[in-house]
Amino acid sequence: MAVPTITELLDAYRAGRRSPRQVLAEVMAKVRGEDAHNAWIRPLADQELEPYLARLESERPHALPLYGVPFAIKDNIDLAGIPTSAGCPAYAYTPDRSAFVVQALIDAGAVPVGKTNLDQFATGLVGARSPHGPGRNTFDPDYVSGGSSSGSAVSVALGQVCFSLGTDTAGSGRVPAAFNNLVGVKPTCGLLSNSGVVPACRSIDTISIFATTAADAQAVLDVAGRFDQQDAYARPDATPELGRGSIPAHRFRFGVPRPKQLEFFGNTDAAKLFEQAVARLEALGGEAVVIDFAPFLEAARLLYEGPWVSERYAAIRPFIDAQPDAVIPVTREITLGGAKPLAVDAFQAQYRLQAIRRRTEAVWGELDLVVTPTAGTIYSIDAVQADPIRLNSNLGYYTNFMNLLDFSALAVPAGLQRDGLPFGVTLFAPAHYDQDLLAIGDRLHRAAGLPRGATGAALPDVPPVLARHDHVIPVAVCGAHMRGLPLNHQLTDRRARFVEAIASAPRYRFYALPGGPPHRPGIVRVAEGGIAVELEVWAVPADQFGSFVAGIPAPLGIGKVELADGLEVPGFICEAAATAGADDISAIGSWRSYLETVAAEQQ
Amino acid sequence: MAVPTITELLDAYRAGRRSPRQVLAEVMAKVRGEDAHNAWIRPLADQELEPYLARLESERPHALPLYGVPFAIKDNIDLAGIPTSAGCPAYAYTPDRSAFVVQALIDAGAVPVGKTNLDQFATGLVGARSPHGPGRNTFDPDYVSGGSSSGSAVSVALGQVCFSLGTDTAGSGRVPAAFNNLVGVKPTCGLLSNSGVVPACRSIDTISIFATTAADAQAVLDVAGRFDQQDAYARPDATPELGRGSIPAHRFRFGVPRPKQLEFFGNTDAAKLFEQAVARLEALGGEAVVIDFAPFLEAARLLYEGPWVSERYAAIRPFIDAQPDAVIPVTREITLGGAKPLAVDAFQAQYRLQAIRRRTEAVWGELDLVVTPTAGTIYSIDAVQADPIRLNSNLGYYTNFMNLLDFSALAVPAGLQRDGLPFGVTLFAPAHYDQDLLAIGDRLHRAAGLPRGATGAALPDVPPVLARHDHVIPVAVCGAHMRGLPLNHQLTDRRARFVEAIASAPRYRFYALPGGPPHRPGIVRVAEGGIAVELEVWAVPADQFGSFVAGIPAPLGIGKVELADGLEVPGFICEAAATAGADDISAIGSWRSYLETVAAEQQ
Repeated sequence: MAVPTITELLDAYRAGRRSPRQVLAEVMAKVRGEDAHNAWIRPLADQELEPYLARLESERPHALPLYGVPFAIKDNIDLAGIPTSAGCPAYAYTPDRSAFVVQALIDAGAVPVGKTNLDQFATGLVGARSPHGPGRNTFDPDYVSGGSSSGSAVSVALGQVCFSLGTDTAGSGRVPAAFNNLVGVKPTCGLLSNSGVVPACRSIDTISIFATTAADAQAVLDVAGRFDQQDAYARPDATPELGRGSIPAHRFRFGVPRPKQLEFFGNTDAAKLFEQAVARLEALGGEAVVIDFAPFLEAARLLYEGPWVSERYAAIRPFIDAQPDAVIPVTREITLGGAKPLAVDAFQAQYRLQAIRRRTEAVWGELDLVVTPTAGTIYSIDAVQADPIRLNSNLGYYTNFMNLLDFSALAVPAGLQRDGLPFGVTLFAPAHYDQDLLAIGDRLHRAAGLPRGATGAALPDVPPVLARHDHVIPVAVCGAHMRGLPLNHQLTDRRARFVEAIASAPRYRFYALPGGPPHRPGIVRVAEGGIAVELEVWAVPADQFGSFVAGIPAPLGIGKVELADGLEVPGFICEAAATAGADDISAIGSWRSYLETVAAEQQ
Repeated sequence: MAVPTITELLDAYRAGRRSPRQVLAEVMAKVRGEDAHNAWIRPLADQELEPYLARLESERPHALPLYGVPFAIKDNIDLAGIPTSAGCPAYAYTPDRSAFVVQALIDAGAVPVGKTNLDQFATGLVGARSPHGPGRNTFDPDYVSGGSSSGSAVSVALGQVCFSLGTDTAGSGRVPAAFNNLVGVKPTCGLLSNSGVVPACRSIDTISIFATTAADAQAVLDVAGRFDQQDAYARPDATPELGRGSIPAHRFRFGVPRPKQLEFFGNTDAAKLFEQAVARLEALGGEAVVIDFAPFLEAARLLYEGPWVSERYAAIRPFIDAQPDAVIPVTREITLGGAKPLAVDAFQAQYRLQAIRRRTEAVWGELDLVVTPTAGTIYSIDAVQADPIRLNSNLGYYTNFMNLLDFSALAVPAGLQRDGLPFGVTLFAPAHYDQDLLAIGDRLHRAAGLPRGATGAALPDVPPVLARHDHVIPVAVCGAHMRGLPLNHQLTDRRARFVEAIASAPRYRFYALPGGPPHRPGIVRVAEGGIAVELEVWAVPADQFGSFVAGIPAPLGIGKVELADGLEVPGFICEAAATAGADDISAIGSWRSYLETVAAEQQ
């Protein structure tokens, strides 16, 4: 039986129905059992597991967000006391400390159960480049698992663990998700620390998360995404710099590459499933916009053909120089290729990339996110072994550009081909939209009606993942800031977006204040005798809201306003003392109507 | 006679006392006259100047911020129709369009008068590496002018033009400022477009500004700092990401390198003048803090010894490969050295730089800015020609790291040596503090009592340059947000800084609201019977203020609070309806005293 989802498992622990020791005994039986998919390099022994279990017995299940949740770790990420090999036995070392992210998960109660197979040194998207045997697809073992995070994806898809850590430089956290019917989070680079991770391309590496549901992935991301002062490439979570604030759940615009720019490598099933995913996004409230995908593809080619391969060489330079034969041939060839490019070529490629970045930025003015296939097709292990470089690079068509262009991305299951193999799509957006993508991806995933990973079980009925709301701050306005009125530009200049017209709760008096122009009203909450005032709610980018507030002159300010539906949102309030000498226009209850009345009187 | 400052010149135009045609006739007489300092490569001919003058005759002097202001352009920056040579005649081309920044200045009314001499391809800090002869110091022609922006500095120091454009990759906009008693703005990289500039190290190049006063430099920066969509490295002006908000004018903390990390290359006069500058900054309200300068110096060495030289090769690769003999020997040797480093070395140097960046970031938690000498000493032209590489690199000791670490910097005149040669200091801070540095630099410059450039004239009596105030927003708090109280972390978590303890104006009633913990007060403005309430004013980074406001629960909000000194600042207000059932604690007038009273009663 598959391990339950994080949500289900926590429920069972908190209700006292299960204990971590019971659950982990079942998990380890599977992890240490027959490994037909070549998922594991190194399951933990009982005595290695014991400290984690013992510690949980002194903790309350409610106190830890990942209490007793088993997880797998790609073998290029450190777990204290267990060898890290990066899929190359001669390279292995045993770290004293766990990687920063692993330690954060353990601190939150999660239990590491072992190290998983990978394309050696995380170089590959197939999962077949490993001395431990090719990762086998969980829906058909003759097909690739996808890579490089092969074992981490397989172990989750089979229901052996609740979630796993992979890494993702060029697609290693997304392709295996697509090929095994999983959710794969490719976070904003720098959001998850790389301390304790064997680098692939150090400037664009990130840890990734595999889970069977977006809700589980979110629970892991919440814990893992802590700023690490020791990682020079770490970035604090931040308000997105680009785009239009957070993605509205039910009214969003998504880009789709032009039909000629979509590449399925002859796989008509995949093409059809992609069309269905687009239709499903539209049914969820999205508006599809055809975009020119050329700059994204150009960036993808830059990674594949350009000097970034020198970062792979930089990552293991002394090792591969000393022991080239310890590296498998395809990986050796690629990595040593990184010794050749010149610095001048690296800088010129970086200039080119910077120019492409500027071109792709323009897209986000029109769109909230882009959807593409995660991979255009899937290959058998035999096919990949016959043609290892070309087929591997085909799998990166939609993934290679992501980290170079500093996007957040989410791989979402999107259907099964007629042969039963999974197909997935990727949603992507600028940096720091990770949470928003999870919210939309969750709805898209549920709408697809798919089983959970490769377990055959249905998706659990858990609450939807919510988008981040701190990208934007709602504000209720009742006067000159409303659409078409003189101060509305103070909102639109700050890229604020109109949300809705709604009345206040009937708890206010409404005044036309002396002074102006611009003429301004004030609403004052009263214990009794209140009326409903006509309002507009606008969403203001969080980093812009402060200057908006600071610019509001007395007697007005921003407090909380109760809406007709009972919701309380930031909004204009008025110092009561200022209503002495003001006209009480509560009988009108609408600033627009009041202005019309005044205008009519003056004619 | 020297050309007046921008302010003075605009006054004369606007009062109708002078016309651009008159002023430019005088300017061109000097520009085309004997060039003992080797400042000019290509003054404009009358017919080339005519369109600019003709256009101004159809404009009102009040309508253009730089109406009729003559300026010089370093010959690696394009002026339409005039050859750009970068100091290498064989390289010259004639652009159809002016550089983005030049065009912005012309649009604002400024009049370009010619192209100036430079260290060839902007490679050098001495000014002596030019086929047009060495730039000669405006205080002693046997000494170097500094470079690479030699002619641009000289022309301003001599009072031939009001301001000039240079470029600055490793110090080319600062060293010549120091050596000619000028203000030199090294803006945040990306703030001024590089479109139409011959690159040196394209990823870290910026246009720079020379002027005789900070006020003039500010006037130019205001016009020049427009976002250019076409320059992939352009960045919009932004709230600083690091640091503690804007620099307070009269209470700031500045870093000074440890005494052993200061390097004057045996120049005891320079050492003494630096001490005096530090003392002058203290007298202006600054607190000196000794810092470890090692990470800055490590970054400086990285530029000098590392693979960034490959960017110089990238900039002119086809040209120097085809015509190496067209480049002067020292520049050829340096530039062709850039053909050698490997991409793997470039990436590894970038990793190292990223680590240094993280280390230097920590400094800004404690400091507002750092002050160093601009250059530790100055050399004669003969000395430099005898030892061109080593003496040149000595001049970069305090400048090389600046763009690699993404700082804003300002070179400020700081005194004259006993031999009459100028000495300068550099103020630097994180990116986007350009305006704040100008405000402090202006005061430091005035305090030094120096003449204007090399003109012998006194500095003009113009209003001080003001710092930007939109980096931080002040907020008056009166309750649980004050120091040591339970909600103070809501301010400190947002990097807010304590400004002062002050009473409100005596116009409020003060209430202890029901509910809590945390217990909270409310202040309500009243028409009469008001008292003064004890407040604290905090400065909150502008991009953080919105989330602070949004998190405040009803009945509180942020409006305007009047302080005892009459100033009105954003601060807590309270809906009057909520004071029904609240304790009126106006007789106490202080939340701290009220809490003490309550605590005493409970004992």
